[in-house]
Amino acid sequence: MAFFKNMPFRIGLDISGGDNAPAEVYKGAVLAHKELEHELTLVGVPSEIEDQAAKYPGSLKAFKVVEALEKIEMADSPVTAVRRKRNSSMVVGVNLVKAGKLDAFVSCGNTGALMCAATLITGMIPGVERPGIAVPMPTKKGPCLMIDVGANIDCSPQHLLQYAVMAAVYSRLVMGKSDPRVGILNIGEEESKGTELYKTTYKLLAATRLNFVGNIDAKSIFSGDCDCIVCDGLVGNIALKVAEGCADFIMKSFIGAGSKNVVGMLGLALMKGNLLEFKKNLDYAEYGGAILLGIDGIVIKGHGRSNALAVKNALKVAAQELSQHLTDEIKKSIDETYGDPAVRELLGDSR
Amino acid sequence: MAFFKNMPFRIGLDISGGDNAPAEVYKGAVLAHKELEHELTLVGVPSEIEDQAAKYPGSLKAFKVVEALEKIEMADSPVTAVRRKRNSSMVVGVNLVKAGKLDAFVSCGNTGALMCAATLITGMIPGVERPGIAVPMPTKKGPCLMIDVGANIDCSPQHLLQYAVMAAVYSRLVMGKSDPRVGILNIGEEESKGTELYKTTYKLLAATRLNFVGNIDAKSIFSGDCDCIVCDGLVGNIALKVAEGCADFIMKSFIGAGSKNVVGMLGLALMKGNLLEFKKNLDYAEYGGAILLGIDGIVIKGHGRSNALAVKNALKVAAQELSQHLTDEIKKSIDETYGDPAVRELLGDSR
Repeated sequence: MAFFKNMPFRIGLDISGGDNAPAEVYKGAVLAHKELEHELTLVGVPSEIEDQAAKYPGSLKAFKVVEALEKIEMADSPVTAVRRKRNSSMVVGVNLVKAGKLDAFVSCGNTGALMCAATLITGMIPGVERPGIAVPMPTKKGPCLMIDVGANIDCSPQHLLQYAVMAAVYSRLVMGKSDPRVGILNIGEEESKGTELYKTTYKLLAATRLNFVGNIDAKSIFSGDCDCIVCDGLVGNIALKVAEGCADFIMKSFIGAGSKNVVGMLGLALMKGNLLEFKKNLDYAEYGGAILLGIDGIVIKGHGRSNALAVKNALKVAAQELSQHLTDEIKKSIDETYGDPAVRELLGDSR
Repeated sequence: MAFFKNMPFRIGLDISGGDNAPAEVYKGAVLAHKELEHELTLVGVPSEIEDQAAKYPGSLKAFKVVEALEKIEMADSPVTAVRRKRNSSMVVGVNLVKAGKLDAFVSCGNTGALMCAATLITGMIPGVERPGIAVPMPTKKGPCLMIDVGANIDCSPQHLLQYAVMAAVYSRLVMGKSDPRVGILNIGEEESKGTELYKTTYKLLAATRLNFVGNIDAKSIFSGDCDCIVCDGLVGNIALKVAEGCADFIMKSFIGAGSKNVVGMLGLALMKGNLLEFKKNLDYAEYGGAILLGIDGIVIKGHGRSNALAVKNALKVAAQELSQHLTDEIKKSIDETYGDPAVRELLGDSR
């Protein structure tokens, strides 16, 4: 960690964001302080921070505190909340990133509001038209990054191209894949599958220097033969939620089936340890939440249900993105893609 | 079964359709003959039928046989196969329905080809523009019919309206729901969610006399609070395949977790009976496969992986659809919907 020691980053944390805020968020900051050598700034209502600090005597001196007078609730309408609650912890935190007073900001609060605040305040990476939300889906061979899962439900082929480029950079720098395989989520593997959006995107991605592996049949998401999967935000959001709903349904049915009789109950009890480990693998919180890509700055969305461990992981992801110069690398990769003659030819040189 | 005794239906079965054809298909016919009092006609290559008949001495006299000289394979391109293989069991069977020589035809073969043969040969129900494929999704409260899962990836709001009407009729007559609740698969519950397609469909469905319950968040498919869910074929196909892929992934991971150590293995062994029952609930084959709606005739698609039991169930579904006059009831309901002043006003009386 010599590298981190020499270059501490200034990372902000929204103390009011998330279902388990402020208790688990503060606890996550305490955990992160033990592990990371960065400057952590808590953004929120001071009295709330002090209440939590009282549980961990002496802990507060490890953090900087920036006052915010209100908070954005999980149920708030994103655009309205960001416009009206200018003194909320979320808006204050994102403004600190924009002003260069923080290197990154982490919030487990309202995803739509954070995306909106980041887009309006820090702005977009040049060449990226729309922000995207990516999530690491669990697969048989480790996580696969799926983008977009709901930021942009009216996608053009160029939006999907930009998502593919950004996801590949993220996968390489943050998830450690050396030459990430990129696919399109589709209804079958053949090039001719799907609507015009999908067919045009196929041609565009095939023209890039990405490690493009073609269409991924939706059934094969979980096989892990792909590192990044692009799709429009409507399809991606539904795919993600079907997977979550299905996993929940199966786990409950399974436990229900086990609880039906004494033999089953004994079986379930014996499997308890393995069951918990299995559930952990399914839990997105372990990976540190959703990933906002396209923003000209590091703004991290932790899972809304984050516990202290997930908050700590989100802070670690922020540090990793900073140390890998994620934003600059995405800028470079977007420029290279649009400078590529093969891509320019397909786009009619319109850019 | 007095009703069936007085009115035997003439039901055809594609002996060559499906991954387990002809063995399991023939066995399914034998099982169905014991349970149903209808006239069963096997359509296929005579030598294949005789080979299977030899396994069940005396069984062949229970069936009629119609000769077909070739078969459509699971991997064949649907349109090409239907056009070129005019003597295939599938095309011959559908032609018999069109000619009024069979009341219904069942095949576990290539879904796209069966849909294509049915559309081209028997034609569409008047007022229905596109056929749709529906599947019963398992939920906490029994199956929920999802339509369309891949027949039509470029849907208009009127296509979705027609799917909703047909699914509601099917759900009432075949699945026994007295006043089926109809919802739209979407990225959230609010009326404003989704693309223009979804917003316009919402208004249309709200104007009908259907028991419309609004948008269903994709996470809630499995809650069972809805009997019919409509969506465009691209989204529906991806949702179905994500659910299948996710279920497969979870079952395998679960069993893998149980097999990690002796305690877990013992637990799994004790749960075996409950596990099998649980798996059965997830298995679409139990419900008799996909449902082709919009066709002007009864053509049933059994699951490609059907075993004898699933084949028998598909034949039972055919008998049920016939006894309930499914096609006539759909015609009536489509007419009523388009005759409804509230719907006509929204459509600008264009029909």
